[in-house]
Amino acid sequence: MRVSVPLRSAYKLLNHGPTTLISSAHAGHRNVMAAAWVMAIDFEPCKVAAVIAGDTFTRELILASGEFVVHAPTRAQLELTTAVGSVSGRDVDKFARHAIATATASIVQAPFVEGCAAWLECRRIPEPAIEERYDLFVAEVIAAWADDASWDGRGWAFRDDAHRTIHHMAKGIFFATGARVE
Amino acid sequence: MRVSVPLRSAYKLLNHGPTTLISSAHAGHRNVMAAAWVMAIDFEPCKVAAVIAGDTFTRELILASGEFVVHAPTRAQLELTTAVGSVSGRDVDKFARHAIATATASIVQAPFVEGCAAWLECRRIPEPAIEERYDLFVAEVIAAWADDASWDGRGWAFRDDAHRTIHHMAKGIFFATGARVE
Repeated sequence: MRVSVPLRSAYKLLNHGPTTLISSAHAGHRNVMAAAWVMAIDFEPCKVAAVIAGDTFTRELILASGEFVVHAPTRAQLELTTAVGSVSGRDVDKFARHAIATATASIVQAPFVEGCAAWLECRRIPEPAIEERYDLFVAEVIAAWADDASWDGRGWAFRDDAHRTIHHMAKGIFFATGARVE
Repeated sequence: MRVSVPLRSAYKLLNHGPTTLISSAHAGHRNVMAAAWVMAIDFEPCKVAAVIAGDTFTRELILASGEFVVHAPTRAQLELTTAVGSVSGRDVDKFARHAIATATASIVQAPFVEGCAAWLECRRIPEPAIEERYDLFVAEVIAAWADDASWDGRGWAFRDDAHRTIHHMAKGIFFATGARVE
């Protein structure tokens, strides 16, 4: 079940460096792409930095709407994560092609991809210079959610392998989030 | 053994989102800190983005020297990683206090922390506006290295738990890099 995560704890959803899915929507168009280069950059208000390449349909939609959702997909969504990273949403409706179940986000227009471990609703903070030079976007997290199958209210507590988050190395090779150590 | 990683493959060292150690040096002073908010942002030339808080001794040294080393520490270095994140190098020589073995880097003045899984020698690309606003630094990777106990020449191939990289969630709680999945 999707449960609300306080904004002061939202950084914990991404702090361990999982690969993400980014959804976006504007004026009747929507898209989802895979993005490994996303990280938290502040605690409160929680902010994220994300690399969104210049030629992507996602970038068009984010520039137009000012909003997106960062998701942490699970090991069970490995195939989906690879699939949405390999075609452009300009050419095909990825949600239809891959039968991706969605839900309505709480604030932003961009849809939630169902089945993820975390959802962070983000509002772009315009930084045109670094967007142009590095494809680097900065955003404030304005609402955050986690799947209570893996989130115990204070942090990640993965109960089975299928629900673990995933970390992309290169070319479709991932590592699952492993043992908790402290 | 530390082996050279071609710059076009350097992003793979950080792509899975491990926690890092950042070392720096200038004019006879040196330091090392833990940093979870570090990621690759480009392939070739490989670039990284790193959050380096405004009040840190590391930031002083990086601004003065223009250089630093990003390390991926291992599970065996968990205690060290937590320790160097909890005091300022302004007050204490962390290398001496924690008996951290170091080696000379190939290009930059900042030292290598021995025993890590990866070492990325970085040169700051000055971006004063985002350094000020978000504590966010951009750098080019100018040399990269990996421990061949875990790196097979094409990617990570962790052979035992002690050598796995680690991912910080919050407050000293980490996850080891887990099973390879594709």
